[in-house]
Amino acid sequence: MMRLTLADCEALDRADPLREVRDEFILSPEKIYLDGNSLGLLTHAASRRVREVVDDEWANNAVEGWHVHDWMGLPDRLGTRIARLVGARTDEVTVADSTSINIFKLAASCLRAGGPRRKIVTELGNFPTDLYVLQGLTELLSPAVELCAVPREHVLDAIDSDTALAVLTHVHYKSAEMFDLAAVTRHIHDKGARVLWDLCHSVGALPIALDDAEADFAVGCTYKYLNGGPGAPAFLYVRRDLQDRYQPAISGWLGHADPFEFGDDYRPAAGVRRHRCGTPGILSHAALDGSLAVFDDIDLQAVRRKSIQLTELFIDLVERECAGHPLTLATPRFAEQRGSHVSFRHENGYEIMQALIARGVIGDFRAPDIMRFGFTPLYTRYSDVWQAVATLREILQSGCWQQADYRIRRAVT
Amino acid sequence: MMRLTLADCEALDRADPLREVRDEFILSPEKIYLDGNSLGLLTHAASRRVREVVDDEWANNAVEGWHVHDWMGLPDRLGTRIARLVGARTDEVTVADSTSINIFKLAASCLRAGGPRRKIVTELGNFPTDLYVLQGLTELLSPAVELCAVPREHVLDAIDSDTALAVLTHVHYKSAEMFDLAAVTRHIHDKGARVLWDLCHSVGALPIALDDAEADFAVGCTYKYLNGGPGAPAFLYVRRDLQDRYQPAISGWLGHADPFEFGDDYRPAAGVRRHRCGTPGILSHAALDGSLAVFDDIDLQAVRRKSIQLTELFIDLVERECAGHPLTLATPRFAEQRGSHVSFRHENGYEIMQALIARGVIGDFRAPDIMRFGFTPLYTRYSDVWQAVATLREILQSGCWQQADYRIRRAVT
Repeated sequence: MMRLTLADCEALDRADPLREVRDEFILSPEKIYLDGNSLGLLTHAASRRVREVVDDEWANNAVEGWHVHDWMGLPDRLGTRIARLVGARTDEVTVADSTSINIFKLAASCLRAGGPRRKIVTELGNFPTDLYVLQGLTELLSPAVELCAVPREHVLDAIDSDTALAVLTHVHYKSAEMFDLAAVTRHIHDKGARVLWDLCHSVGALPIALDDAEADFAVGCTYKYLNGGPGAPAFLYVRRDLQDRYQPAISGWLGHADPFEFGDDYRPAAGVRRHRCGTPGILSHAALDGSLAVFDDIDLQAVRRKSIQLTELFIDLVERECAGHPLTLATPRFAEQRGSHVSFRHENGYEIMQALIARGVIGDFRAPDIMRFGFTPLYTRYSDVWQAVATLREILQSGCWQQADYRIRRAVT
Repeated sequence: MMRLTLADCEALDRADPLREVRDEFILSPEKIYLDGNSLGLLTHAASRRVREVVDDEWANNAVEGWHVHDWMGLPDRLGTRIARLVGARTDEVTVADSTSINIFKLAASCLRAGGPRRKIVTELGNFPTDLYVLQGLTELLSPAVELCAVPREHVLDAIDSDTALAVLTHVHYKSAEMFDLAAVTRHIHDKGARVLWDLCHSVGALPIALDDAEADFAVGCTYKYLNGGPGAPAFLYVRRDLQDRYQPAISGWLGHADPFEFGDDYRPAAGVRRHRCGTPGILSHAALDGSLAVFDDIDLQAVRRKSIQLTELFIDLVERECAGHPLTLATPRFAEQRGSHVSFRHENGYEIMQALIARGVIGDFRAPDIMRFGFTPLYTRYSDVWQAVATLREILQSGCWQQADYRIRRAVT
């Protein structure tokens, strides 16, 4: 892909089998949006569905919406759609709560099952909420449970005969490093432990095969590559044969076998549904309903192919066009080992990113020195990549980031 | 109020100091909506705010919305508004998750603080999720904690020197019976225990004075009298002097002192914010933002006065107009002891409620025999009450409910 020109990139755009999907999104013409790995863009379908649910369903049916529109079934219907994207059966996924809450629920549920094993293994530098939630859970269940957070290179060795559960993130939020989900799951099972995969930074960006890997548990958010909207509800997965063996840790009324019996005693629902807790936030679910519809006809292999091409193009162009500037690739160079974003280190990454944003190239910064660029094959064009790198080069060459007084910007991963 | 005619009720409507608030709501002209205690109606403001957040903020700013529109501060801004409605300081309330999750979080947080006391006391027949969540929590922490659920009349006696926490619902979801929040809190404190109040069925319907009562913890939902929309996010309250003494049980990244430091170690935020977990669902928060704006100029004493008049009128009219039919009042007759809904028992309550709904009078049914009618002073008129009772009388006298094949309807409390 070396020595590509803007015209070459435009030709790639015209030949892109996913090019028409871009029309499903509402895009700002003056921006190159490389932050869909943090918050995906609004689709026409999501906008429409929210309007419909608010101004028709809620307005006209009020409480009757729960049965007229089967709002109560929405989390499972969304789960069914997500199931295809993570390689699960339709009854293995449901939508509920946030990723943080779902990590707590499934990890607690797994540990509550008891057994002599005491250890939860995870990675230092994992996305903070994974670490924080496990720290809190460990203290809550202390001394029965112990958290073992180790550097990435020691994670597999830390899984031993005392390990109950490993909690790992499929694609790392900073580096985009990807675990081999099947091989790591196999290793964990060989040690007699269970695994909980956090799919936040991979779902929707590449094919995932949870069932083929015989993964145990998984969670993920829907506001990155799935475009569900800011703080959209999360999902959770429990492999079918495990579903009835684990009691929910937070046993809310919508995880009851018959919530509308209004009885005093909790009886868990069959299947993954037992991990639902409170009344689902239908407005947020509506946006997700719209945004997932875009995925219904999408071939995830094509998404992955384009993702690799985009990230490869970006790395090549940056290293060629910005040679001589102290940029270091912080993402695996080998495509099979990375997700769909690319990070470069630069001592002044913060200021440079502010300068990029001021010029309409939207990426984000992660302390201490990481500039992060996300490539979302459904709407990122090859020519966007070219333009983004041209802007980066211009900023580095002009040194404009040194004077500018860029306001503080905090993004959500 | 006896012997009131429809014309009298219409005169009361004209004299109602809250009559103009009704215009803030989107109402179906052919329905009398007496289920605002289950799902409040859509306001123009909520519809507008959702559209604004989706089609302007998200569409145009995408990830930058987090700082341009301070989405991250929304849960606290909404908490500030709710604080006035529950008699709390602005820094004692935040919006997060669901009522079920919040009960778990605060109860677990309280119990985690340790101490020799082992018992959680609650009421049999409490709203199911309260019971279910506490059952799950007790099993998770077994044998350190024990759940003691007793009939309402024994609750106060059950609180003893072994009680760590009492979890009580201010207004009962079926009977509308109301605890004297201040007196019961005092009793619980006299026994050396803490109290967690569930305000789902009272917030927005009557003044609540958490701080005056020196209550410890509280939770509540926002989709009933606060009109936040189906499954709108819940809120939680922790009294200021307790906030830094209790560690969060689910320690998610947004409860961290500095979430954007992305560090490996959890340090709880100061104040009530430490009980936030994952990324807030901004679309659901937006609707609540709109619906709470309606409350900004509302005098809750006026709301309570009208609520009492509406419920009293309803009870009087039903007992006069439907005399001779086997209806039994299942709600306290004494206004000071009840919330803003009224329940009547009837052996065929289910079928009668279906007949009412088919005629545009929307109440709901709770097993085994409760017909429940909610009175929301912001939009229920005295003439609505009169019409609803006229319809009920007609149904009882005609016996039409005996033949009709009404479809099954499941409502959400």
